[in-house]
Amino acid sequence: MVGAGQLARMTHQAAIGLGVTLRVLADSDQDPAAQAGAITVIGSPANLDDLRALAAGADVLTFDHEGIPPEHLSALAAEGVRLAPTPEAKRLAQDKLHARTELAARGFPVPPFVHATAADDALAFADEHGWPLVAKAPHGGYDGRGVFWLENPDDAVSALAEYPGGLLLEPSLTLELEVATQIARSTNGEHALYPVVQTVQQDGMCREIVAPAPVSSELAQEAQSLALRIADEFGITGIAAVELFCTPDGLLVNELALRPHNSGHYSIEGCVSSQFEQHLRAVLGWPLGSTALTAPHVVTVNIVGPMDGSDPARRLPEALGVDGAHFHLYCKRARPERKLGHVTVCGRELDRTHAAARHAAAILHGESDE
Amino acid sequence: MVGAGQLARMTHQAAIGLGVTLRVLADSDQDPAAQAGAITVIGSPANLDDLRALAAGADVLTFDHEGIPPEHLSALAAEGVRLAPTPEAKRLAQDKLHARTELAARGFPVPPFVHATAADDALAFADEHGWPLVAKAPHGGYDGRGVFWLENPDDAVSALAEYPGGLLLEPSLTLELEVATQIARSTNGEHALYPVVQTVQQDGMCREIVAPAPVSSELAQEAQSLALRIADEFGITGIAAVELFCTPDGLLVNELALRPHNSGHYSIEGCVSSQFEQHLRAVLGWPLGSTALTAPHVVTVNIVGPMDGSDPARRLPEALGVDGAHFHLYCKRARPERKLGHVTVCGRELDRTHAAARHAAAILHGESDE
Repeated sequence: MVGAGQLARMTHQAAIGLGVTLRVLADSDQDPAAQAGAITVIGSPANLDDLRALAAGADVLTFDHEGIPPEHLSALAAEGVRLAPTPEAKRLAQDKLHARTELAARGFPVPPFVHATAADDALAFADEHGWPLVAKAPHGGYDGRGVFWLENPDDAVSALAEYPGGLLLEPSLTLELEVATQIARSTNGEHALYPVVQTVQQDGMCREIVAPAPVSSELAQEAQSLALRIADEFGITGIAAVELFCTPDGLLVNELALRPHNSGHYSIEGCVSSQFEQHLRAVLGWPLGSTALTAPHVVTVNIVGPMDGSDPARRLPEALGVDGAHFHLYCKRARPERKLGHVTVCGRELDRTHAAARHAAAILHGESDE
Repeated sequence: MVGAGQLARMTHQAAIGLGVTLRVLADSDQDPAAQAGAITVIGSPANLDDLRALAAGADVLTFDHEGIPPEHLSALAAEGVRLAPTPEAKRLAQDKLHARTELAARGFPVPPFVHATAADDALAFADEHGWPLVAKAPHGGYDGRGVFWLENPDDAVSALAEYPGGLLLEPSLTLELEVATQIARSTNGEHALYPVVQTVQQDGMCREIVAPAPVSSELAQEAQSLALRIADEFGITGIAAVELFCTPDGLLVNELALRPHNSGHYSIEGCVSSQFEQHLRAVLGWPLGSTALTAPHVVTVNIVGPMDGSDPARRLPEALGVDGAHFHLYCKRARPERKLGHVTVCGRELDRTHAAARHAAAILHGESDE
């Protein structure tokens, strides 16, 4: 697995049960997956030789992030390394503009968008859709980074000066809800659809996951059907997350992640087979597991570094007093606004489940939630 | 944790979620917990210096087996190492004769027993209870090793010749059922009781765990109440397993394990907090988690090395096709009759749950279960 962050960490945890040996490419032996005991190759995904060293002798090469040069992936594939997902499919998650263009070309519903390389492009798009516009860097954004608002033409001029490769612009949409779903597609061809969940975003970062999403079964089925069609159309292998906007005009596909994703963390306790175990099954060509929910309601709240710089892990003993809360600490250095862990609660009633997860998170955050 | 077998392996898996760093004392870097990535000190529990190296700087020292010389534990405690359980409590699991004597002295119901050091002791005991007798080596037995039947006086003579320290003898009891329960007692004083489960034994080795046990709620409560009184009476810390015989005359306490135990493996998916997470919470003095079942029925079937010497792990891809089965492979070298893993299924109906777990295990065992 290229990358050794929390996604690799939780994949390693799942690999232990299956008796699978996970080897990760890490920046340092302090990376979350390295600390959890995955076999660690220190190196950089920017260095093709490091990627070769990681892949040597492995059954399959997969990813916990998007930041691998596509040309390296193509080179590895040409050398006979089995990659899941393939370099072509992975590009859907690496390049937002590519993804939008490909999705639109194949008839999937996406927000209106333009690839703006000059201020005139932005002005023409704003004439059609109005200000403000949402601007997204095509590569490298996550957790709200690389996404910003353009309020007026001046904003557009200065933003485009910073991004000579251009920006993906879209209108400021009226969102009723943001939802996501996971789909796993095994290299054996089998697929498995996860429930549709609500993702609660704040400043562009996912803060909470509510499973199942409070939407009609028709809308949930439509979201799953879109995910399945996307996975089939692009030959996705492994687990993928499809993030969607619920708008007054219907569902729009926002982004794809071709790896375990924050929106699927609830599945560790909340589904029979977690997204991490499922990803391993899928990339190894094994049968997929059940995606059924283990409880009527599952809520996950992310633990994000508090502004005072304190480490939520110090408050774990107190938080463990919250009945039914499952903790996942990533062993990352605490920094304000950095994802450091998550808490999941499964329950029969949404309100109590939600409250328990928020309460445990509030303790870790050092907040009072009374 | 002294020991690096499957119990340490699964404790490490739980430790990852809590952000706890587990260091284990292993025979080799191929031990199950070492392969799973726990920090590994290679050494022997028979060597006090190895134990000191393991314990240096740790918050607390705990165990995944019983085979540590009691005098070493006392020495470590005298040197200021925090042990959970304490050396005194741990002896209840290290010395079956000590445990029986102590339990009987404090009024707990135990099978009739005698410490036989000469054939005359056995003959007198047989006069009272009849042949055959069950003989148990006071130390070092597990999975049926160190337990055997004495059919007649000749057997007694030859057995005692092999065990100069004597044997624990008990009658061949009429058992209606064997059950077990886990109890956790935190060093903060809190305790948590797990459901009572049925353990299905064959040749002295646990083969299946059925949770909850098919017993009356009165009997389950009595078993839990015995576990709680034992834990309090002996000041047990950490998780403990209490194995009980259901006889026509009522419950009898058979054995204690002061560590995570096979009879609690079902709790990984079957309870809100697994015995492994609970053990970590308890030895660290943290609040304990919920022991509620996550489903009406939970069945675990052990994967035991088949007689043909084949490795069940080779058949995992096929077994993964069994819906709802959770797999735990220990990455031990396959050997006939060696515990190599387990499978757990949670479900609403006992029959179907049981059948699914057995079916998955049969595939791994290379058997047809039709």
